[in-house]
Amino acid sequence: MIILVINCGSSSLKYQLINTENAEIMAKGLAERIGIDGSLLTHQVGDKKTKIEQDMKDHKDAIKMVLDALIDNDHGIIKSMSEINAVGHRVVHGGEVFSDSVLINDNVLKTLIDCIELAPLHNPANIDGIKACQEIMTSTPMVAVFDTAFHQTMPEHAYLYAIPYEYYLKYKIRRYGFHGTSHKYVSGRAAKMLNRPIEDLKIITCHLGNGSSITAVKGGESIDTSMGFTPLEGLPMGTRSGDIDPSIIPYLMQKENLSTEEVINILNKKSGVYGISGISSDFRDLEEAVDKENNERAKFALDVFEYRVKKIIGSYVAAMGGVDAIVFTAGVGENGINIRKSILNGLEFLGFNLDEEKNKVRGKEIIISTDDSKVKVMVIPTNEEYMIAKDTEKIVKDLV
Amino acid sequence: MIILVINCGSSSLKYQLINTENAEIMAKGLAERIGIDGSLLTHQVGDKKTKIEQDMKDHKDAIKMVLDALIDNDHGIIKSMSEINAVGHRVVHGGEVFSDSVLINDNVLKTLIDCIELAPLHNPANIDGIKACQEIMTSTPMVAVFDTAFHQTMPEHAYLYAIPYEYYLKYKIRRYGFHGTSHKYVSGRAAKMLNRPIEDLKIITCHLGNGSSITAVKGGESIDTSMGFTPLEGLPMGTRSGDIDPSIIPYLMQKENLSTEEVINILNKKSGVYGISGISSDFRDLEEAVDKENNERAKFALDVFEYRVKKIIGSYVAAMGGVDAIVFTAGVGENGINIRKSILNGLEFLGFNLDEEKNKVRGKEIIISTDDSKVKVMVIPTNEEYMIAKDTEKIVKDLV
Repeated sequence: MIILVINCGSSSLKYQLINTENAEIMAKGLAERIGIDGSLLTHQVGDKKTKIEQDMKDHKDAIKMVLDALIDNDHGIIKSMSEINAVGHRVVHGGEVFSDSVLINDNVLKTLIDCIELAPLHNPANIDGIKACQEIMTSTPMVAVFDTAFHQTMPEHAYLYAIPYEYYLKYKIRRYGFHGTSHKYVSGRAAKMLNRPIEDLKIITCHLGNGSSITAVKGGESIDTSMGFTPLEGLPMGTRSGDIDPSIIPYLMQKENLSTEEVINILNKKSGVYGISGISSDFRDLEEAVDKENNERAKFALDVFEYRVKKIIGSYVAAMGGVDAIVFTAGVGENGINIRKSILNGLEFLGFNLDEEKNKVRGKEIIISTDDSKVKVMVIPTNEEYMIAKDTEKIVKDLV
Repeated sequence: MIILVINCGSSSLKYQLINTENAEIMAKGLAERIGIDGSLLTHQVGDKKTKIEQDMKDHKDAIKMVLDALIDNDHGIIKSMSEINAVGHRVVHGGEVFSDSVLINDNVLKTLIDCIELAPLHNPANIDGIKACQEIMTSTPMVAVFDTAFHQTMPEHAYLYAIPYEYYLKYKIRRYGFHGTSHKYVSGRAAKMLNRPIEDLKIITCHLGNGSSITAVKGGESIDTSMGFTPLEGLPMGTRSGDIDPSIIPYLMQKENLSTEEVINILNKKSGVYGISGISSDFRDLEEAVDKENNERAKFALDVFEYRVKKIIGSYVAAMGGVDAIVFTAGVGENGINIRKSILNGLEFLGFNLDEEKNKVRGKEIIISTDDSKVKVMVIPTNEEYMIAKDTEKIVKDLV
């Protein structure tokens, strides 16, 4: 099947055209600055990149341009829109309603709109993208694939906060977790690489990027994850604080004369490793600052990040009563050779040794623990788009 | 030495008169409703309890009544105030200044007043108590013993939050940790019971009561603890939420039309196991509700609490690269037989087995893991007052 995978932000649209038979990425690209001056589409087929500057006043304009690019005589890859069998849409928040990917119909779209309240920054753009596609590709089936769905298997003790229970009943305030498509993909790959049924495995998946989360995957199901009600909770990230003492919020408000929203904005945009270091949200910049100028705050930022990853790994080993595999994925997880080493240093009691030579790898599927390690440590590049395409294919096939 | 140990709340004063030679509690008691109608002093020597109703308009009145009771012909235990060699004051927050107990002089008192901002709910009462004692016992040396001091050995990666570093420099926003006197006491006792030097040991101390915190004690030093900038962070407690997604605060404000202070108040007073269960902040009530009526929300409350304790234990094993002993103390830790069992269930991979018979103990020093367990699990009743008395004795002796 040929699946168009769409990931809409408020002013952007990322896409991949995937042939699910052979996992080939036929084309991919990014529409930027939608609704803003200087809209730009970057379209790529193989190594050939085409940049098209053209006004896109909304997501519908963007989708039109993407489809035009895909069927273009010069830089296209298909002859007609009808060759696209289905569209898979990434949707950030599926609330408690969606525990799996779903064929989009009027009811589903209505429910997605109800979920906006839980993800006001993300879901509106996702919905705009769905509507835009529906208007243009009127007869193509569409599937929604949720960042939260994989985590809907969490038990109460993992998803309930210790706040008045009424708030869960009335407002659905609970842990949802994100990056579900990625955690599901890499845990599935890990089981395949280990040649063992995922039902028998306890896997900890560390999705470490600009946004970071860790998931405990037991028997193929997410039983806990570090992001919570929103993607602010858990690990320190590029610019996000992760866990803090909630009392810091009123304290900062008073000290700096800020509103609650301003503090939350600081916790989302000015904190994390950027906040500690004062230099950058990019881990490569921090490593460089430590290596080249022995920058103390950059060192603190990396130390805090690595230490908090280590602690969450430990807490999930406890949650599962052991561990078979620890997986690193996403930008930092796939490429951060020294960061992986620091995180793992001291965790050998779990039953592994790091093979330092094998660890010197970036963005490649590999087991980086020594061969005699009982617990396997792995690097597995994530592939959320492929996962979305496969889910879409499965649901559309069932239709026929 | 005879030491008077004082623990002041805003309208209360707890005291113990301790003979440090033989650890005897010569007398103890509680002054309640200070500055409120119906002030009451409950004074106890041995099994004999005396209740004295008399107006106490402030902490000075309360201290006077305590001293009168101690030297009373009928229910007293000493002949004169001069038999008291020193007073040890519990002080909640010592900021970054005090990493150990300290003899109180004018400078120290001034610094304590500077720390009020960090502990506005606790330090003012502690200071009132010190001043009241100084006015009456003019020539008796006084020592301040801090809840935070033991945790001042934490490294940066454990105490820094991933927020702008300026907030640490300007406002000292960082993890402090509390219950330090308790964690220090039980970790010291654990080493003695194991007959091993504390310098060689990795100990996790679980202080589980109405307020709860867990500490990683490596080589006798606190290297991490679950309470943070304030005692709100970390585990769910009787009425405190512990960790939540910070984004929940603005969400609740908007939904329930509350101020930030009101939400923080809810997180402190209406949350925790009380908030989940809607029944009680007392763990015994929750266990009864589960046993007798199979109450689902009481079960959730216990499950969430036990699960979060389990996860923090796991995270501290990771932080220390292993563990030699896990210690339970304080009300729930010392008496919660089933709670301990649930927490430990699934952690056997660490290298212990629970001896279920030995675990059927309340408030007694005992090793509850099986004899062949590599990792020792222990119950050790805490004794903060004795610890305060011993610290006070040590500092006063050095004076002579």
